[in-house]
Amino acid sequence: MADRAAIVGAGLAGSLLALFLARRGHRVEVFERRGDPRAIGCEEGRSINLGLSARGIRALRLAGLWERVRAVSVPMRGRMVHPPSGPPFFQPYGRDPGQILYSIRRDALSSILIDQAEKQPDVRFFFDAQVSGIDRESPALTVSGRGRVEADFVVGADGVSSLVRRAVPGGVRTDVLEWGYKELHLPETDRPQALHVWPGEGALMVAHPNLDGSLTCTAFLPHDVIAALPGCRAIEAFFDRVLPGARELVPDLAGQFAAAPAGQLTTVRATSWHHADRLVLVGDACHAVYPFYGQGMNSSLEDCVVLEECLARHPGDRLAAFADYQRLRKPHTDVLADLSADNFLELRDRLRSPLHLARKHADVVLNRLFPRHWQPLYTMISHTTMPYGQALRRARRQDAVLRAAAGAGLLAGAALVMRGRAART
Amino acid sequence: MADRAAIVGAGLAGSLLALFLARRGHRVEVFERRGDPRAIGCEEGRSINLGLSARGIRALRLAGLWERVRAVSVPMRGRMVHPPSGPPFFQPYGRDPGQILYSIRRDALSSILIDQAEKQPDVRFFFDAQVSGIDRESPALTVSGRGRVEADFVVGADGVSSLVRRAVPGGVRTDVLEWGYKELHLPETDRPQALHVWPGEGALMVAHPNLDGSLTCTAFLPHDVIAALPGCRAIEAFFDRVLPGARELVPDLAGQFAAAPAGQLTTVRATSWHHADRLVLVGDACHAVYPFYGQGMNSSLEDCVVLEECLARHPGDRLAAFADYQRLRKPHTDVLADLSADNFLELRDRLRSPLHLARKHADVVLNRLFPRHWQPLYTMISHTTMPYGQALRRARRQDAVLRAAAGAGLLAGAALVMRGRAART
Ligand SMILES: Cc1cc2nc3c(=O)[nH]c(=O)nc-3n(C[C@H](O)[C@H](O)[C@H](O)COP(=O)(O)OP(=O)(O)OC[C@H]3O[C@@H](n4cnc5c(N)ncnc54)[C@H](O)[C@@H]3O)c2cc1C
Ligand SMILES: Cc1cc2nc3c(=O)[nH]c(=O)nc-3n(C[C@H](O)[C@H](O)[C@H](O)COP(=O)(O)OP(=O)(O)OC[C@H]3O[C@@H](n4cnc5c(N)ncnc54)[C@H](O)[C@@H]3O)c2cc1C
Repeated sequence: MADRAAIVGAGLAGSLLALFLARRGHRVEVFERRGDPRAIGCEEGRSINLGLSARGIRALRLAGLWERVRAVSVPMRGRMVHPPSGPPFFQPYGRDPGQILYSIRRDALSSILIDQAEKQPDVRFFFDAQVSGIDRESPALTVSGRGRVEADFVVGADGVSSLVRRAVPGGVRTDVLEWGYKELHLPETDRPQALHVWPGEGALMVAHPNLDGSLTCTAFLPHDVIAALPGCRAIEAFFDRVLPGARELVPDLAGQFAAAPAGQLTTVRATSWHHADRLVLVGDACHAVYPFYGQGMNSSLEDCVVLEECLARHPGDRLAAFADYQRLRKPHTDVLADLSADNFLELRDRLRSPLHLARKHADVVLNRLFPRHWQPLYTMISHTTMPYGQALRRARRQDAVLRAAAGAGLLAGAALVMRGRAART
Repeated sequence: MADRAAIVGAGLAGSLLALFLARRGHRVEVFERRGDPRAIGCEEGRSINLGLSARGIRALRLAGLWERVRAVSVPMRGRMVHPPSGPPFFQPYGRDPGQILYSIRRDALSSILIDQAEKQPDVRFFFDAQVSGIDRESPALTVSGRGRVEADFVVGADGVSSLVRRAVPGGVRTDVLEWGYKELHLPETDRPQALHVWPGEGALMVAHPNLDGSLTCTAFLPHDVIAALPGCRAIEAFFDRVLPGARELVPDLAGQFAAAPAGQLTTVRATSWHHADRLVLVGDACHAVYPFYGQGMNSSLEDCVVLEECLARHPGDRLAAFADYQRLRKPHTDVLADLSADNFLELRDRLRSPLHLARKHADVVLNRLFPRHWQPLYTMISHTTMPYGQALRRARRQDAVLRAAAGAGLLAGAALVMRGRAART
């Protein structure tokens, strides 16, 4: 008899994995505490749209869903930067036409994944079904309104505050960033289809386009600043200072800002991704990252591909499959967590450092000269499916070359100076 | 009119701070969700006794309570190590008679602190009073059974899972160790009054003496091992393997172990220790550490001293006092968190490394030779009140000297070899 899998959470990872597991002949039940996204659309207070890139796209291709998803997403061919002063400018992601991000609504993507999973014979989704307890030994779930549900194994696809993670014995490191975010809505515009970035002094705004031409903006700023902005006047004054121009863009910015819930940005690193052959974690449940590399969902979808490959490699031995999955995957998502945290610092501080900009520029120039051999880290992370750890190692090698080149340049310069001196004496 | 302080939590830090604040003329209300420790004694599942050392003792002296506390605690003049094979041996903490740790029951210490605080005119303790909400702007608390309570400022002394911390805007890093713990009880013995340590292979047991001659043991081991030991047989087999001898010591070890709740060990580093002049954090609420340096309570009591000094330094300017408190204190508790995590690794792994033991031995010998100028890190942390960061810097300098000495030794050795060779050729 096929193994029964109980998946907690019908988010992006849970829904895709339901499909993959069903294809492998498992009987799958998915329990989701929210309502059916096909009926209710997007939940308040969650990021409404997301940037899909190479890794997520690959996973959707393997699920046979990429064309359907692409049809309802908006391509973003580059970054539109809106500096505090001066006109906006466009940075294409790359000359390679494949280097495109796609902006997709969370509920649209979920709906496609759930629809497809439900077409498999042995998959059932239960909505408004909160899991409140986990018996890690049976294993079994306690589900609101349904009582005890047994299974052969449980998948924790229940996101950043995962309950299943708490049932997996082991350690966990959690970082809540001192910056939070609020989502704002910009109605239809004639702005280009790009990822918009407003780098500010002590704040940062990003926007993804929607199919109807509107933009969903996310304003990132320190929690203590958010807390100290109770009135509309204070909010307006703040935006005028740190993000001049934002008020002209976002209608009733202060009202929207005051009404929006403040979101937290969290990094989670779980030490153990599985308990024996009975519990296993995917997505944000085991490795939530800050959104500053746009990789949270992409890496979560990639997890499902790796887990499915591991199950295929060890038929009949779930423990070996789960152990292999953690061994193969965790080192890379650990790198991603670090990179995402670094990118926060970069967006916040370094974008203004001339040395950093010079290095970035060299990166871009070298990439133009040697497109095959020289790839900026951002390109490898976002536009390839090379494992994260490997991308980082390659970037480090490239960096060493750049530094050596810079060092050699300095030495050559010094040599000239010395020669000049020697000639003069 | 004197400022009204509302303290959340009548643990060790909250009770001591109530006393300090009342002495400074504040009107103080303390809300504690548990019952009165003077009536109910120790709570299940919390560490029953604790090792008091120099920093905690200093704080209690300033409160005028040290002699009373000393009278109900058990001096521990050293470590009794029970190796897996071979007889136990005793390591005195130092030749200085001041280098003593004191084992004290948590409820006994709490009771003394609360008694003394209640003697001040304007202090009130409310037990069975859970705080469920915090309005950070007023500020005000929502207290079970009492409704809304207003104050001029709120102190979060509510421990590792602090609610007040969540109301302070900012980031927080949390590490839950992959090892947990269970408490076991050893009835009256004729064992010496020492801190007992059983270093095991993949487990560790520590015990503090109680006044009645009994010992409270804490067994530290990986969560996944705890989870995989459901039956008494498995528990007995595990202890026989990793901590041989433990079963002879602890009556019904397997039964006690199975019944005890598994505790988590958590490091918390809050980015912000205060919100404006309205909320401030002390103790585990802002900097919980692993217990492997025995400094959690000691540093929490020390916080109260520093906070009180800062309030004295800035009369009428609470914001300046809170900001100063964080500035002066946080760098040191950050160091403590790192040291406590390192000490876990040391206890787990390095105690077996010969190189490490040689280094430790050199440390001890040098301390004997130059007691004033050479102090092992452990001594500075546990037996002095030198700020943690300063202790670490000094230890690093000493380490550099040791390493240089070792390097010189190697060089001298190499020189001899070379000379030998030269002579032979
Ligand atoms: C502001 C912001 C912007 C982002 N932008 C991007 C981006 O551009 N690109 C990108 O790749 N990623 C982005 N991310 C990250 C992305 O949102 C997450 O990585 C992704 O949603 C993780 O998917 P998941 O399926 O693991 O978890 P989730 O999508 O969080 O799904 C978890 C599901 O489990 C359910 N659940 C939880 N607990 C229970 C329970 N006890 N019982 C039943 N159900 C439960 C939840 O209701 C939820 O539906 C962003 C994140 C944020 C916060
Ligand atoms: C196994 C173990 C061994 C240890 N050994 C040592 C040792 O030898 N030496 C040492 O120095 N330290 C030791 N510690 C650390 C020490 O226990 C803590 O650092 C210390 O208790 C912190 O004191 P605190 O007052 O900040 O918090 P706590 O003592 O945790 O007090 C917090 C109080 O707040 C109350 N509270 C919480 N939330 C609310 C709410 N919402 N409403 C009302 N009340 C609330 C709680 O009930 C509690 O009484 C050990 C810890 C552990 C886990």
